[in-house]
Amino acid sequence: MTSHAGRLLLSLLTVLFASQEVRGDEGMWTFDNLPLGILKTRYNFAPDQAWLDHVRMASVRVPHGSASFVSKDGLLLTNHHVAHGAIQQVSGEKNDYLKNGFVAASRADEIKIPGYTAQYLVSTENITGLVEKAVMAAPSGTRKDLLRAETIARLVAEENKKSGLHCESVALYQGGEEWIYRYKLLNDVRLVMAPEFGVAAFGGDWDNFTYPRHDLDMTLFRVYENGKPFHPPHHLTWAEKGASFGDLIFMVGHPGNTNRLDTLAQMKFALEEVVPFRLRNQGRMKKAYRRHASQGPAQAMEVSQQLMSAENFFKVFEREWAGLKDTEAMGRVAEAEQELRARVAENSELKAYAGDSWNKIEEALQLRRTFIKELFTVNTRGSVLFELALHLVRLPEELAKSPHERLGEYRDEKTLQATRTRLEKEQARRPEEEVREFTIGLEEALEELGAKHPFVEALLEGKSPADAAKDVVARTRMHEASFRKELLEKGTKAIQESKDPFILLARTLDPMNRTLRKAQEGVRAVISEHAARIAKARFAVYGKSKFPDATFTLRLSFGTVSTCRAMGTLLQPFTTFGGLFDRADAWGPEAENKSWALPQRWRERRHRLDPSTPFNFLSTHDSIGGNSGSPIVNRKGELVGLVFDGNIDSIPGRYYYDERVNRSISVDARGILEALEKVYDASHLVTELRRD
Amino acid sequence: MTSHAGRLLLSLLTVLFASQEVRGDEGMWTFDNLPLGILKTRYNFAPDQAWLDHVRMASVRVPHGSASFVSKDGLLLTNHHVAHGAIQQVSGEKNDYLKNGFVAASRADEIKIPGYTAQYLVSTENITGLVEKAVMAAPSGTRKDLLRAETIARLVAEENKKSGLHCESVALYQGGEEWIYRYKLLNDVRLVMAPEFGVAAFGGDWDNFTYPRHDLDMTLFRVYENGKPFHPPHHLTWAEKGASFGDLIFMVGHPGNTNRLDTLAQMKFALEEVVPFRLRNQGRMKKAYRRHASQGPAQAMEVSQQLMSAENFFKVFEREWAGLKDTEAMGRVAEAEQELRARVAENSELKAYAGDSWNKIEEALQLRRTFIKELFTVNTRGSVLFELALHLVRLPEELAKSPHERLGEYRDEKTLQATRTRLEKEQARRPEEEVREFTIGLEEALEELGAKHPFVEALLEGKSPADAAKDVVARTRMHEASFRKELLEKGTKAIQESKDPFILLARTLDPMNRTLRKAQEGVRAVISEHAARIAKARFAVYGKSKFPDATFTLRLSFGTVSTCRAMGTLLQPFTTFGGLFDRADAWGPEAENKSWALPQRWRERRHRLDPSTPFNFLSTHDSIGGNSGSPIVNRKGELVGLVFDGNIDSIPGRYYYDERVNRSISVDARGILEALEKVYDASHLVTELRRD
Repeated sequence: MTSHAGRLLLSLLTVLFASQEVRGDEGMWTFDNLPLGILKTRYNFAPDQAWLDHVRMASVRVPHGSASFVSKDGLLLTNHHVAHGAIQQVSGEKNDYLKNGFVAASRADEIKIPGYTAQYLVSTENITGLVEKAVMAAPSGTRKDLLRAETIARLVAEENKKSGLHCESVALYQGGEEWIYRYKLLNDVRLVMAPEFGVAAFGGDWDNFTYPRHDLDMTLFRVYENGKPFHPPHHLTWAEKGASFGDLIFMVGHPGNTNRLDTLAQMKFALEEVVPFRLRNQGRMKKAYRRHASQGPAQAMEVSQQLMSAENFFKVFEREWAGLKDTEAMGRVAEAEQELRARVAENSELKAYAGDSWNKIEEALQLRRTFIKELFTVNTRGSVLFELALHLVRLPEELAKSPHERLGEYRDEKTLQATRTRLEKEQARRPEEEVREFTIGLEEALEELGAKHPFVEALLEGKSPADAAKDVVARTRMHEASFRKELLEKGTKAIQESKDPFILLARTLDPMNRTLRKAQEGVRAVISEHAARIAKARFAVYGKSKFPDATFTLRLSFGTVSTCRAMGTLLQPFTTFGGLFDRADAWGPEAENKSWALPQRWRERRHRLDPSTPFNFLSTHDSIGGNSGSPIVNRKGELVGLVFDGNIDSIPGRYYYDERVNRSISVDARGILEALEKVYDASHLVTELRRD
Repeated sequence: MTSHAGRLLLSLLTVLFASQEVRGDEGMWTFDNLPLGILKTRYNFAPDQAWLDHVRMASVRVPHGSASFVSKDGLLLTNHHVAHGAIQQVSGEKNDYLKNGFVAASRADEIKIPGYTAQYLVSTENITGLVEKAVMAAPSGTRKDLLRAETIARLVAEENKKSGLHCESVALYQGGEEWIYRYKLLNDVRLVMAPEFGVAAFGGDWDNFTYPRHDLDMTLFRVYENGKPFHPPHHLTWAEKGASFGDLIFMVGHPGNTNRLDTLAQMKFALEEVVPFRLRNQGRMKKAYRRHASQGPAQAMEVSQQLMSAENFFKVFEREWAGLKDTEAMGRVAEAEQELRARVAENSELKAYAGDSWNKIEEALQLRRTFIKELFTVNTRGSVLFELALHLVRLPEELAKSPHERLGEYRDEKTLQATRTRLEKEQARRPEEEVREFTIGLEEALEELGAKHPFVEALLEGKSPADAAKDVVARTRMHEASFRKELLEKGTKAIQESKDPFILLARTLDPMNRTLRKAQEGVRAVISEHAARIAKARFAVYGKSKFPDATFTLRLSFGTVSTCRAMGTLLQPFTTFGGLFDRADAWGPEAENKSWALPQRWRERRHRLDPSTPFNFLSTHDSIGGNSGSPIVNRKGELVGLVFDGNIDSIPGRYYYDERVNRSISVDARGILEALEKVYDASHLVTELRRD
C-alpha cells in the first residue's frame, strides 16, 4: 500500500460521482450498502431497520452453506446437500439416513452432529481506516503486506476478546475494504429431519443446474445451547400464503465466491487457460471411466459415481466456458472496464495510484501462463499412495520450520494431526483402483507436459502410463499402514534413504512442486495488490454503487418469482408434486443409474399428496454456491422458500449476471409442509413450524 | 436437358459406386428405396413386403398433413392442428367445436366436411426414362423445358384415365427422377371427434417446437364412400402395449418440403438473404404489435394473436438462422459437396455434364441477390384494399390472354372465381385495422428500399408511413363492395381512368411487380436445370444411397423412443397426464394469454385419469412439416403414436439432420385411449379402435 492510498480516501468526495449500471435484479448486497433506491423505485419497497435486523439475524451460516432459524425453539432449515456430510456422519450401516431419510419422533430422538457448528451475524465493523492508519504509520522499509495482515489479525483478536463473539476479518472489494464480522457461534446442532437422498436430489447429477426441477432439497436441524433448545433472537415464520408469479422476494445467505470484479485480463486467462484445462481434465476422466465401464456391468457399477461426477463437472465447465466466450455479455464487461480505465486516466491522482494496475495484473498473468500447465499437473496425479509418500517426505522438513514459514497445509495443528493419523492408519484403496486412478493421472501428465518433461520422465521411466502405474503400485509398500508408521517414526534419514518407488517419486516431485507454488504466490501478491488499487479507484469514481464479490459472508439478493425463455418456450415459474411423479413415471425407476427413482415411501404415499402443491420455483435472484440453504422471504420477512441451485445459465454468474437467463431455484415452503405432513407423518414438526 | 443426359443414364453402372454417410436415424425414405441395410444391421429388423404394403396403404394424405386409417370402418386419425380448418369450417357461433371440442355420439352425428378430401397411395411408377426419351427425340430447337412439362402432364393424364385413380407427377431429387404416384381419392370425410383447442394445443404458440410437451393434438374423422363407412384395404390396429424407451418405431407420412440437397451456395443465400429478411420482417411485426398493445388492454387484446404469431415465427427463423450458422453442421454439408464436386471433376463425362452446375447456381443467386429485397417488398404491403385494387387492375388484362400465358394466380378457373367473389362481396376490415397493417407494410418498404425507391416514393408521397396509410385509407372507396363490383363490370377503361388512390397505387405497382416476378422465374429456371444435373451426377457417383428432399409424398422414417441432452440434463422420453396438470397448475389459467389454461372438462375430470399414463413422447425420427398426423407404428406395424411436432433443434432439419439433437414429438396412443374414455366418455370409439 503506497502513501497515495491515504490521500485517495480523503479525496473520495471530491471526485465526480457516477454509477455503473446494475443489470436487472443483479447483486449480492452487503447489509451496510443495500440497493434501497432500486427497491423503492422498481418495487416500491422500503424495508425498515427492524425488517433488516430480523432477516439478518434469522439467517445462519453452516459449513459449506447457508441456513435459517425457523422456530423459536431453534429449528434450523438448510439444504439436504449442505447437510449431506453431517447426515452421513451420524449414519451407520444399519441406519443409512442418507438413503432412507430420518425423522426424529421427539426431541429426545434428535441426533447430535459432533463438531458441527452454526453461526449468525450479530454485527459488523469497517476497519479499513484503522488498517490503513497502522500501515501508513509504519517506518519506510517495513514489509507492508505482512504488517497489514498482522494488523488485521491483531484487531480480530482484540474484538474476539472484547465482544465474546466469534470474530472474523473480511476483505471486501478485493481488499478495497477491510471489515470485522462478529458471529454468535453455536456448537450443538442436532439432526431433526432429512428426506431420502432419492427425493432430495431427485434427478441426480443429471438434473444438477436444471430447471424445471423437483427436489426436496431440505434438512431440519435443531440448535441447542447448554443442553436445551436454543431460542434465537430472530426466526422466520412460515408465510400464510406462498409467493406468486412476479412477487418480490428476498434471499438472505452466504454466497461463496465470485469473480465479477476481476479484470478482463483475468477473465481472459480463465477463458484461455484455466477453464480449457479443466475441460480437458474432466474430458479425460469421462473417457477413462467410460473405457472402464465398457468392460462389463460390474466395472460400470464400480465407476458409475465417478463417471457421473465427471459428466457433471464437464457440463459446468462447458457452460462456464461458453459464458466466457459470450461476446455480448463479455462485451459489457470490457466496456465497463474501459470506462473505468478512462475515468482513472483522467484524474492525475487516480492515474498515479491505479492507472497501471490493469497492466500489472496482465503482466503477472503472462508470467503465470508460462507455468500454469505445470502448476496444474506437477502433483501426486490422483494416486493416494503418492500423496501419502509426499507427506512422509515433507513432514519432517516442514515441522523443523516455524509455522508461518511452512507450506500452508502444515501450519495448523488440527490439520497436521489429521495428516499424521492418515499416515499411520489410512487403509489403502484396492490396488486395481489405485492403478486405474494413477494411470489417468499419468496419462494427463504425459499429454499436458510431454514425454520429455523431467517430471514425466521420472514418472514413466519410458513406460506407458498404464504400465508405469502398475509397476509402481506393485513394488511400493505405501499401502501398508505399519510401513508408513515405521518410516514416520524413524524420521528424515530413513525416509531419505528409502528405496520405495513412491518415496523416490515424492522426492523428485517435492522441489518441483515447491518452485511452482512459490511462483504462483508471487503472481498472487501482484494481483492482490493491484486488484485492491483498482477497487479503491472504482470507489473514487463511482462510489459504492456496486456490491463486492462474494466472500461467504452475509448478503441480500432481491428478485421475483419468474420464468425464463428456454428451448423456444417459457419455463414454468413453479413445479408441483404432480411434476415430480410425471418425471418418475416417465423415466421409470431404473433409467440412468436410477437417477429418477423415487423412494418407496413416496411411491406408497403418492395418493396422499395434493399433486398441485408447489414444489420448486424459479426466481431472478443473483446467487452462487454457498447460497445453498438460504431462506427466501417475502415483503413481510416470512419464509416462502429455500434456495438450493441455479439454472444452467447461472453458471457464468461467476463472472457476470445476465438478467435474461440467470435464475435461482428454490424449494417452495408449501411443498416442505405438505411433504412433512403427508409423506413423513411429521405433524409435530409442521405444528412447530406453523405455530411459530 | 442436353444430350449428355442419355449417355449419363447409360453410364450409371460403369461409374464407381460409393455411398455418403447417413447420420444416425436420418432419412425420409421413399418406399422404392428403403434403408433396409441399416434397419437390418442396426436394429435387426427386416420388414417383408406385406408389412411395407400394410403401413403404406394405411397411411393417408389430407390437406396440409398426414393421417392414417385406424379402424375397418374408416376411422381416420390425424392431428388437431392438421384438422383445424376443417373443424372451423363446420363450427358455428353456437357450436364452436374448436373451442369446445366435439364427440359424435353415434355415426349419425358425424359431420361431413364439405370439400375435404383424403387419399392413400396405391402404387407408383418411375417415368424418368419415358420423359427423357420424349425429350431426346424432339427436334433441335424445341424448348425442352416446356416439352418436358408437357410430356409429364400427358403421361399423368393418360394414367388418370387408365387407372381410374387420382394420379400426380412427383419430381424427386430436384428433378433427378420423375414419378407418377397413383392415389385412391376419397371425398366424403366426416368429423367424429376433436378435443378442445386448449388441450390439443396446450401451451399455445409458446410451446410450439418445445419438449417436454403435453398436447392432445389429435382428431378423428371417418371416411365414407357411397354414403357408407369406407372399408380401407389396410388400417392400423392399436398396439396392445405402447412403445418403451429405446424401442425401434416407424413414422409413415408425408413430409412437406426440405432443402437438404441444395448446394452450399443456396444455403448461404438463405443464411445471408432470405432468413435475415424474414427475421427483420417478423421483428418489425413484433415491435409494431407491441407498440399497439402498449396503448391499453383493449388494444393488447386486438393484436394478441398477431403478436404471438410474430413471436413464434421469429423463434423459428431465429433457430433456422442459428442452424445455418452452425459451423460444425454446415462444415459437414460443405465437406459432402466438396467431395461430390471432386468426384464429378474426376470423370470427364460427369464433368462436362454437371461440373459447372454449382457455379451456374451460384451465378443465378448472385443475380437474385440484386433484386431480392424488392422481390420481398414490392407488393401490396399488408393492405387488403391494395390487394383487391391490384386484382381489379390485373384481371381484365390477364383474362385477355390464353391461360398458360397469364400470371399463375389467374390460370385456374376455380381460383379466378374465388377472386371475382372477393372483389364483389368481401367485407373490408375496420379502417383502423387496415391503417395499422398498411402502416407496418409501408414502414418495412421504407426501411428495406429507402425513401428514394420509386415504389416507396409513390406509396408515401413524402409523408410518414402512418400518415400515408391514413390518408390513402381515408380517401379510397375500395372498402365498398358495390364500388368494386361496379368497376369490375365497367371494365378496363373505367379502371384505368379511376382516380381511387389504391387503384392508382396498383397501376404503379403492377409493372414493377411483373418485372421482378419475371426475373425470379429466370433464376428459378437456371437453378432447376442445374439442380437436376447435380442430382443425376450424385446418382452416378453414389447411386441412390440418399433419400430425396421432401415433396409432400409418402415417406418412411425410422427411429427410437429417445431422450436428448438439453439445459444440462436429459429430456424425459415420455410425458404423462401428471405433467399436463403440473404445467397447468404451475402457470394457472390466466398466464400468458391463457396459454396453459385447461378446458373445463379436463379440470372437472382430472381425478378420473391415471396420471401416469404416457401422453407425449420424444423420438429420433427425421420429420418436417407435412409429417404432422403421421402414424407411428411398431415392428408389428401396430399404432403406438401420432407425430405432431419437432423439437426446437429440429428446425435446421430443413437443411440437415443433426442426430445429436433433432427429435420428433408424438402423442402416445395410450394417452389417446385414456382421454377418449375418461374425459370424452367416448367408449364407443375406444371399443371400435380396440376391437379393430
